Amino acid sequence: MFKDATVAEIDIVLQKSWKAFHQYRKLSLKQRADFMRAIATEMEALGDELLTTCAAETNLPEARLRNERARTIFQLQSYADACERGEWLEARIDTAIADKTPPKPDLRKMLIPMGPVVVFGASNFPFAYSTAGGDTACALAAGCPVVVKAHPAHAATSELVAKAIFRAAEKNKMPDGIFAHVHGVGFEVGKALVTHNYTKAVGFTGSYVGGKALFDWANQRKEPIPVFAEMGSINPVFLFPEKLEQSAADVAKLYAGSITLGTGQFCTNPGLIIGIQSKALDEFISTLGNEVKRIAPGTMLHPGIAKAYSEKRKAAISQPGVDTVAVSESEASSNQGAPTIASASGQAFLNNPVLHQEVFGPYSIVIKCKDLQEMAEVAKHTEGQLTCTLMATETDIRNNEELVETIKNICGRFILNGVPTGVEVCLSMQHGGPFPATTDSRFTSVGADGIKRFARPISFQGWPDSLLPDELKNGNPLKIWRTVNDRVTKDNIS
Amino acid sequence: MFKDATVAEIDIVLQKSWKAFHQYRKLSLKQRADFMRAIATEMEALGDELLTTCAAETNLPEARLRNERARTIFQLQSYADACERGEWLEARIDTAIADKTPPKPDLRKMLIPMGPVVVFGASNFPFAYSTAGGDTACALAAGCPVVVKAHPAHAATSELVAKAIFRAAEKNKMPDGIFAHVHGVGFEVGKALVTHNYTKAVGFTGSYVGGKALFDWANQRKEPIPVFAEMGSINPVFLFPEKLEQSAADVAKLYAGSITLGTGQFCTNPGLIIGIQSKALDEFISTLGNEVKRIAPGTMLHPGIAKAYSEKRKAAISQPGVDTVAVSESEASSNQGAPTIASASGQAFLNNPVLHQEVFGPYSIVIKCKDLQEMAEVAKHTEGQLTCTLMATETDIRNNEELVETIKNICGRFILNGVPTGVEVCLSMQHGGPFPATTDSRFTSVGADGIKRFARPISFQGWPDSLLPDELKNGNPLKIWRTVNDRVTKDNIS
Repeated sequence: MFKDATVAEIDIVLQKSWKAFHQYRKLSLKQRADFMRAIATEMEALGDELLTTCAAETNLPEARLRNERARTIFQLQSYADACERGEWLEARIDTAIADKTPPKPDLRKMLIPMGPVVVFGASNFPFAYSTAGGDTACALAAGCPVVVKAHPAHAATSELVAKAIFRAAEKNKMPDGIFAHVHGVGFEVGKALVTHNYTKAVGFTGSYVGGKALFDWANQRKEPIPVFAEMGSINPVFLFPEKLEQSAADVAKLYAGSITLGTGQFCTNPGLIIGIQSKALDEFISTLGNEVKRIAPGTMLHPGIAKAYSEKRKAAISQPGVDTVAVSESEASSNQGAPTIASASGQAFLNNPVLHQEVFGPYSIVIKCKDLQEMAEVAKHTEGQLTCTLMATETDIRNNEELVETIKNICGRFILNGVPTGVEVCLSMQHGGPFPATTDSRFTSVGADGIKRFARPISFQGWPDSLLPDELKNGNPLKIWRTVNDRVTKDNIS
Repeated sequence: MFKDATVAEIDIVLQKSWKAFHQYRKLSLKQRADFMRAIATEMEALGDELLTTCAAETNLPEARLRNERARTIFQLQSYADACERGEWLEARIDTAIADKTPPKPDLRKMLIPMGPVVVFGASNFPFAYSTAGGDTACALAAGCPVVVKAHPAHAATSELVAKAIFRAAEKNKMPDGIFAHVHGVGFEVGKALVTHNYTKAVGFTGSYVGGKALFDWANQRKEPIPVFAEMGSINPVFLFPEKLEQSAADVAKLYAGSITLGTGQFCTNPGLIIGIQSKALDEFISTLGNEVKRIAPGTMLHPGIAKAYSEKRKAAISQPGVDTVAVSESEASSNQGAPTIASASGQAFLNNPVLHQEVFGPYSIVIKCKDLQEMAEVAKHTEGQLTCTLMATETDIRNNEELVETIKNICGRFILNGVPTGVEVCLSMQHGGPFPATTDSRFTSVGADGIKRFARPISFQGWPDSLLPDELKNGNPLKIWRTVNDRVTKDNIS
């Protein structure tokens, strides 16, 4: 077991991190990218030990862990590439106009790092959203040192990955303090990290309670700092009439898989399905129920999550007007989550905030609206989400423009005829959404645009070419895209 | 006089604004831009009435108001152009890869508006940072309706500009509620606006006390919303030894003008000048003092600001170790601010937080450090700023790399051998900075990048070309810059 860091230890960590910041921020984009690639290499070099350690801690199957490790390595490498390509720097140049009244000075802007970033790993993604995950990769690309608080549910895995990062740092001659790794089971460690004067930004993936606490502490500081907390979502799926009429059974089968994938432990698990009373909806529900009955319970990430699932599921299905449609026919042992489908009327959903809450695990509730108007009411009364999905034909969409716009307005990713559970790592991915899905819908935690969470613009006014950073020099030595006098270009300035 | 809006009136305003949001967000970039240009036209059409009304309310001279009006019109027009060019949309496309395992879906991301934006105008810029100022222009470009709370110090001016906006809205057939204008002297109106459920973002320029209150209310909401508050700055100027040796008198004359420009009522007024004890610094101080003595007091924006200046100036110059170097030789009448220069030692500054506070008006304090090391200490202990300025030769900069980096780290705009008081309206301008200069250093309130304060990304997954917004269609009908499969391009997708 690992000891919780004390406030004094955290202070030492952040003093070092602050010192490292002043060295690391001066390194070139290439040096940052090479360091990130080295982390990927060292993480891969951990080999099977990493997988077996993690499987023991999280109960996640090996195949899933192999995939997640590959994704994490890909993230490090692809964000390293993006770091070097430099589009995230938002380089803008306006050259001087001497004969304007008053004369217009030479102005050049780019993003620079904010300072040490504290990262809180997620229980459900021990690699991709944890120690060397997306937040860490984004912060390092931005030029920020990172302090990771290991998730207690996979602390040994986190230790291993941290060692890989330390090795990469040493091999790449990174400044002492570029990365730190602390443990903490209680809230105190998180609070000490977020409220430390030298912490300048926070990345978090986890529960609403945890994320909101960090957000509040950060805003109550003498100097408030930005927190990007991704706090989960129920990821509503809207079943439109024509689509359901055409393929109720197929959609049901697709969703049975998505709801129970990874024992339902994805932030993008579809926990809410909204349809309109009809024969087709009855068919959808019965097929979904039959599918889910046949899916065996899976062991959940840790006993705490299994317990929370069991309690929240029980609370949800015992609400007035909620029917249990189907439960897995295999008996669930104590740390397992039994796949479950419930249903309720549109009115029951609208009147009961409990049904809007995430039940983290293989659970979904089908809302039976009396008509499209009630479906629109449900959409309007649903809080911010990471994803919303439409199962709809083109005619469904064209006939219901207002409803489609209402749904679009509450989510970060808007899916047509698919499942939300695949979070592709690419620039066009938005993994974020209106509160309470995240604390700031203007940012993403997946894709290289996530780098911008940890960087801020600075304008250089009146600096000679010789003293400007390479990113902004006339000759454009890094060959990056820049906006020069309102024109997007890679050209140099003559 | 204008009546404060009641909570019930504010509710009606935001209900209408919310309704307008759902229509306005669907309008094309061109429709938004045309509306913004129409506001510029209508504002110009107000003619001399606008100038005389404003001069009577603010005591600002006509020439200054003409310039500020021209700047405001330019802002509206140039942000309209930027809105149409569409680079701010950050359009990203990753096309599908069917034979990947699992198959990669088609993903396309762009920024969409957040919802109604509440704008609080500034007392010191009745046009450019007020009713039809930068925040309003940015919000409209982003696709958000705007509710302006008029600044009580120029409420009649604000009424006139609001009428121009209403006329432009009518002529351009904008939805009812696209713009609203309310009055309020007390904090209650601001609080009701910021805490209303339909308010989705806030723009503010003004005092620390005002901005921080809005920020706190916004974060304490059930659904927190982003506030971009620009809360002023003391804009430190660092006098480096070689530069001062070469041109102490010239620098002093330049700064005498900058400190007293517009009776010192700019957010970027240089209120803190840091030098190193030397003959050259003595010469700088005596020249600055002599210049300032000859500058006549100006009438301040309103009696409240004149009173605050007088009190804060008195508090500053009566601190232990502070000497008054020079005060304008002309007698200041009750609503005027007398140009004043004070001085103190580095130690006095380091030990006394009062000397770090902004004295809004024609005041500056010169800090006499004993050496470069003490100057570095002063830099390290100075809070976040809109601007920092170096008066330095290239040798000064090369010899003091650490110090230069420390200064860079605390500001949004980093000026070499110039004055901070000119805020150029262009894409490379950063008008923002680390807290307490603003509440979020990642954004700017000047330049078209300010649009991004009020917009959030959304990813479309699996949508057919026919249903995608024009910005993301294969054919790129708007001919905007997009990143397609990690390549920046205007090409269409075949």
